[in-house]
Amino acid sequence: MAVTYAARLARLIEALRRLPGVGPKTAQRMAFHLLDRDREGAQRLVAALGEALAGIGRCPECRMYCEDGRCLYCTEARTATGQVCVVESPADLVAIENAAGYRGRYFVLLGRLSPLDGVGPAELGLDVLQRQLEGGGVRELIIATNPTVEGEATAYYLAELARARGVKVTRIAHGVPLGGELEYVDGGTLARALSGRQPL
Amino acid sequence: MAVTYAARLARLIEALRRLPGVGPKTAQRMAFHLLDRDREGAQRLVAALGEALAGIGRCPECRMYCEDGRCLYCTEARTATGQVCVVESPADLVAIENAAGYRGRYFVLLGRLSPLDGVGPAELGLDVLQRQLEGGGVRELIIATNPTVEGEATAYYLAELARARGVKVTRIAHGVPLGGELEYVDGGTLARALSGRQPL
Repeated sequence: MAVTYAARLARLIEALRRLPGVGPKTAQRMAFHLLDRDREGAQRLVAALGEALAGIGRCPECRMYCEDGRCLYCTEARTATGQVCVVESPADLVAIENAAGYRGRYFVLLGRLSPLDGVGPAELGLDVLQRQLEGGGVRELIIATNPTVEGEATAYYLAELARARGVKVTRIAHGVPLGGELEYVDGGTLARALSGRQPL
Repeated sequence: MAVTYAARLARLIEALRRLPGVGPKTAQRMAFHLLDRDREGAQRLVAALGEALAGIGRCPECRMYCEDGRCLYCTEARTATGQVCVVESPADLVAIENAAGYRGRYFVLLGRLSPLDGVGPAELGLDVLQRQLEGGGVRELIIATNPTVEGEATAYYLAELARARGVKVTRIAHGVPLGGELEYVDGGTLARALSGRQPL
């Protein structure tokens, strides 16, 4: 597309394109929708973005978002379980929180170990986690990084970290998803399902 | 999803959901992306939305957007062609502008006649268009409403309006799209292509 928009419209479309998964056509559609049909929605988005940028920070304990210095996931009740579940991203935290009935604490890495991209233990906040493991309040570290090469490497690193401090480490199970049919499951997943078999 | 977010995050996700085509999952992804990886982009979006809301109005002549009282499409050169192309939406205008080599003026209806939804001639600004047709500067009205039932009804209404004022009316051609194969084109389109055949 080689459209020439007037200046303000061009800047609005450009700004919308920075949203994930939004290309030029979608950005134009969003801009026109807001201008033609939902100026109130646009106003609300301005307000919501403004207060989010100003008022959403990071929890120093778990690196999830926190507002007004309070983190939803570092409550006393959760800390009392002695469990800490390590995830790569806030979205992973929400997915687990949403589905799993898990009520312990979390630790959000905001990434995964990837030396080539300059992401080492410091970038993932592992010094913070290490201090918590040494503090004695953590009884089990549940590793829920993604089953990718980098996620597995991160999992091994975390396991070492915890084991060296005498903390029990577990990894979430990988295998055939519920409702999945063996016939259509990829080989890697099947191999993991077999090697991870459990007594009935 | 029955996630509980903290207040500000919840409002941000809610505001993002008002964008067209954005459901709860996408809104969450956008919010996390902006908060984790692109706070500068979020800041820019705030600024762009703010200046768009304050500074983008409607051209009183063609109902397209205009900034600082200037409309890109109501220039003297375009007016001099004596052609006015009627489209349903700003996106239609951009599509034609982008592809067609057309250099006349436009008139954006911002809708189509739909009595059941309370959209009559007044809502489409047809009083403005009528005055332009009576003003004598328009030599050809090109109707480019969509080939839907309501778009066709609108086209007929517009044609009457122009004809009664002695202005030539044309309708953009409907038929087999370029690159389309006859075998896969729907019957309605084929019928239009046949009835609209032209001498070679």
